[in-house]
Amino acid sequence: MQACGLIVEYNPFHNGHAYHIQASREATGADCIIAVMSGSFLQRGEPAIIDKFHRTKAALSAGADLVLELPYLYAVQSSDLFAEGSVKTLNEAGVSSICFGSESGDISYFTQGYNTFKNNQASYQSALHEQLDKGESFPEASRLAYRHIGLTTDKMDLAKPNNILGFGYVKSILDNDLPIDPLTITRIKSGYHDQAITDSIASATSIREELLATNKVTEQVKRALPEETITQLLHYKQKANCWHSWESYFSLLHYRVMTMSDSELAAIHGVDEGLEYRIKKSALKAGSFHEWMHAIKTKRYTWTRLQRIFAHILTNTTKEEVNLIKGNASVPYIRLLGMTKTGQHYLNSRKKQMDVPLITTLARANVPMALKEEKASNAYYSILPADKRTEFRRQELQPPIMA
Amino acid sequence: MQACGLIVEYNPFHNGHAYHIQASREATGADCIIAVMSGSFLQRGEPAIIDKFHRTKAALSAGADLVLELPYLYAVQSSDLFAEGSVKTLNEAGVSSICFGSESGDISYFTQGYNTFKNNQASYQSALHEQLDKGESFPEASRLAYRHIGLTTDKMDLAKPNNILGFGYVKSILDNDLPIDPLTITRIKSGYHDQAITDSIASATSIREELLATNKVTEQVKRALPEETITQLLHYKQKANCWHSWESYFSLLHYRVMTMSDSELAAIHGVDEGLEYRIKKSALKAGSFHEWMHAIKTKRYTWTRLQRIFAHILTNTTKEEVNLIKGNASVPYIRLLGMTKTGQHYLNSRKKQMDVPLITTLARANVPMALKEEKASNAYYSILPADKRTEFRRQELQPPIMA
Repeated sequence: MQACGLIVEYNPFHNGHAYHIQASREATGADCIIAVMSGSFLQRGEPAIIDKFHRTKAALSAGADLVLELPYLYAVQSSDLFAEGSVKTLNEAGVSSICFGSESGDISYFTQGYNTFKNNQASYQSALHEQLDKGESFPEASRLAYRHIGLTTDKMDLAKPNNILGFGYVKSILDNDLPIDPLTITRIKSGYHDQAITDSIASATSIREELLATNKVTEQVKRALPEETITQLLHYKQKANCWHSWESYFSLLHYRVMTMSDSELAAIHGVDEGLEYRIKKSALKAGSFHEWMHAIKTKRYTWTRLQRIFAHILTNTTKEEVNLIKGNASVPYIRLLGMTKTGQHYLNSRKKQMDVPLITTLARANVPMALKEEKASNAYYSILPADKRTEFRRQELQPPIMA
Repeated sequence: MQACGLIVEYNPFHNGHAYHIQASREATGADCIIAVMSGSFLQRGEPAIIDKFHRTKAALSAGADLVLELPYLYAVQSSDLFAEGSVKTLNEAGVSSICFGSESGDISYFTQGYNTFKNNQASYQSALHEQLDKGESFPEASRLAYRHIGLTTDKMDLAKPNNILGFGYVKSILDNDLPIDPLTITRIKSGYHDQAITDSIASATSIREELLATNKVTEQVKRALPEETITQLLHYKQKANCWHSWESYFSLLHYRVMTMSDSELAAIHGVDEGLEYRIKKSALKAGSFHEWMHAIKTKRYTWTRLQRIFAHILTNTTKEEVNLIKGNASVPYIRLLGMTKTGQHYLNSRKKQMDVPLITTLARANVPMALKEEKASNAYYSILPADKRTEFRRQELQPPIMA
C-alpha cells in the first residue's frame, strides 16, 4: 500500500481541504491519505476553533484515512520546526510522498529554490542577521535574505506564509535525505469554482472570522463547508457551549502572568530579550487580550509570534521542553487521532517498521513527552464550564476515532 | 505614646471586633491601637470575603488607629509562623502590649502554660511525633502532645483554635524575649449581649456563611455588624460584583494544576509526601472546589491545611519563598494599610526607631519580598471582571487609607 502525506490544521475543515485530499490522491495514486494535524493550538499560536477530535471526524468523513497529531512542541512554532515535526512524523508513518498547496503548483520552483539556498547559505545567514539586527521581525528578515540570494521570485514568493511552509517541507525532506517525494498542487482560491468538488471555496481565516463574529454557522459560511464540518461545529458548540478564540482565555492568561515571577516568565519558550518585563508591564493596563497584544506588539514581535508566546505561557511550555526536541533525528512518537478502515489496514501493514512508539490512547502512553498533549488540552478546555471540562478532557484518554 | 497591638483578620469586621478594640484600649490605657491584619488570604487558607482595603476602612472607623498588613508568607500558615509574623510585626511597630481574646480571659493560664511547655519540650516533641507517625493531623497531634505534658486544661483548652493562636502569641513573645506584655480579655460569645457596644455578637464564620448563602446583607447579619462594615460590604459588592469564596476560584485553580508538572506542583509550599499526585489525580474528576477538597481530604490533610495549600498553588507560593522568612530575627518590612490621625502621630514618633522599612505604598516599595503581596492580590482579584481587575489591583499602589 502506498501513502501520501498532508500537513494540515483543518481549522475548520473546509471545501478547499476536501479538494486538497482528492487532488493529492489523484496526483499520487496513493491508497492511503495521511494527514498530520496540529492539535489544540495552531502554528500561528491560536487555539483551534473546535477541538482536535471534532476536527478529526470532519477530516475522516471527507477522505483522510489516517489523522495523526503533530505534537504541540512542533505545532506551535515558526515554520522551520513546524515543517520538521510534520515531515518527520509523516516519514515515520511511511508516506512515499507529501503533497502541499502552492500558488504555482510547480514543485520545481521549490526544489530549485532549495539548491539556490544550499549554494548561498552563508550569504543568506549574513543577510538574515543584518536584517534582524536592524530590528526586523524574523519572517520579514528571512524574506529579505531570501530575496538577497535571489530565491524569492514571482513563481515562489517567500513572503506568502503558504509558500514559506511549503519550502520548509521541501527543505526538511532534502536536508534529512528522506525517501519522500515532495509534490505541490495549485491552491484554489476563494471565489474559484470547481463544480466537481464544491460550489464555494473560502479561506479558513475568513470562515473562522464569520463563525466567531456571528456565533452561528451562517448560510454564507455553510457554502464553504462540507456537511460533516457543519455537524461537528454545531455539535461542539452545543456540548461545549463555545467556539474557541483567544479572547476567552484572557482571564486565565492574565491571572497566570500576574502570579509569575520574572524568572518564571523568562523560562517560557519564546520569552526572550527582556520581553517578560514588557508582557508584565502591559498586563497591568490591558482590559482584553486584544488590548494586551496591541500594547506589546512591535516590528520585531509580530502578532503571530506573540500569539505563540501566549500559547506557551498558557500551556506552561518552557525553553527546556522545546530543547528536548531540537535537533532530534526523529519525532518522539506518533499519535493516532483517527482512522478509516483503509487507514487501519495501512497501519497494520506498516506498524512493525516504525522506529518510534505508536500511541493510540494517552491513557496507556508510556512516552513522557506525550503528556505534553494532555497539558495543552487541559489548558485548551479550561474555558469550558466545570461540568464539561472533565468530559472533554477525557477524550484524550479514549481510543482513536474510527470512521 | 503607648500602643497596644491586636492580631486580626476582620473577615469581616463585626461587633465582637469593635468590643475587642474598646476592651483592649480600656485594659491597657493605650493611646494607639495597632491592628496587624492578614491581607488577601487568611490563616485558614481562605480568600478574604472583601479585600484588605475595604476591611481596613471598616477597622479604622471602629477604633483601630493603625492597620498593618501581615505579609502573605506569614498570614497563610499554621499557628506558629502566623503568630511569629504577627508578634514580630507588632514589635517592630513598638507596641508595649498585645491583647487577644480567650475563653478564660486570664493571661496566667497562658504564661504558666508556657513554662510547662518549656520544661517539657522534649517530652512534647516525642509525643507529637508519635501522633504524627500514627497519621494524625498536626493540630490533633499537637493537642494530644499538649495533653500528654499536662498543658491542655479546662482553663486553657488547646483544642480550641483561638487558644492555640493565643498560646502562639505568648510563646512568640517569651521565646524571643520581646518587651511586650501579653494580655487577654474574655471573648464575648455569640448570643452574649453587651448593650454598651452592640445588640448582637455573632462569629465571623456564621456572618460569612449568611452573607455568601444569601448573597445579601440580611437584616439578621446587619445586627452583628457596625454600620461601616455594612457600607464596605455593599460598596465592594457593587463595585466588584462579588464577595470572595473558594468556589469562585475553582476554574483558575483547576487550570493551574492541570498545566503544572509534578515537580512544579511539588515545589509549592505545603505540597509534601507525594500530595502532588493526589491533587492531580483528584482534579480529573472534581466538578467543584468542594468536590475536589473532599476527594483529597484525609485525617492528616485537614480541610484547613488543604485550603492553605490551594492558596499557595493559586498564588504560586513556593517552598523556596517560605524558607526565606523562616528563622529570621525580624519581619522583612512593615506595611501600612491605613491610619487615623492618632495613628499618624504615633507613627511619626516611632518611625526612626524601626529596624525594617516602613512601606506606605507598594509603588515605591524597595523590598523584593513586598512584591509577594502584589502577586497574592493579583491572584485574589483574578475572579473579577476584566475591567474591574485593573482598578482593584491598582489599590495596591495607592498611599495608605486615611480616616
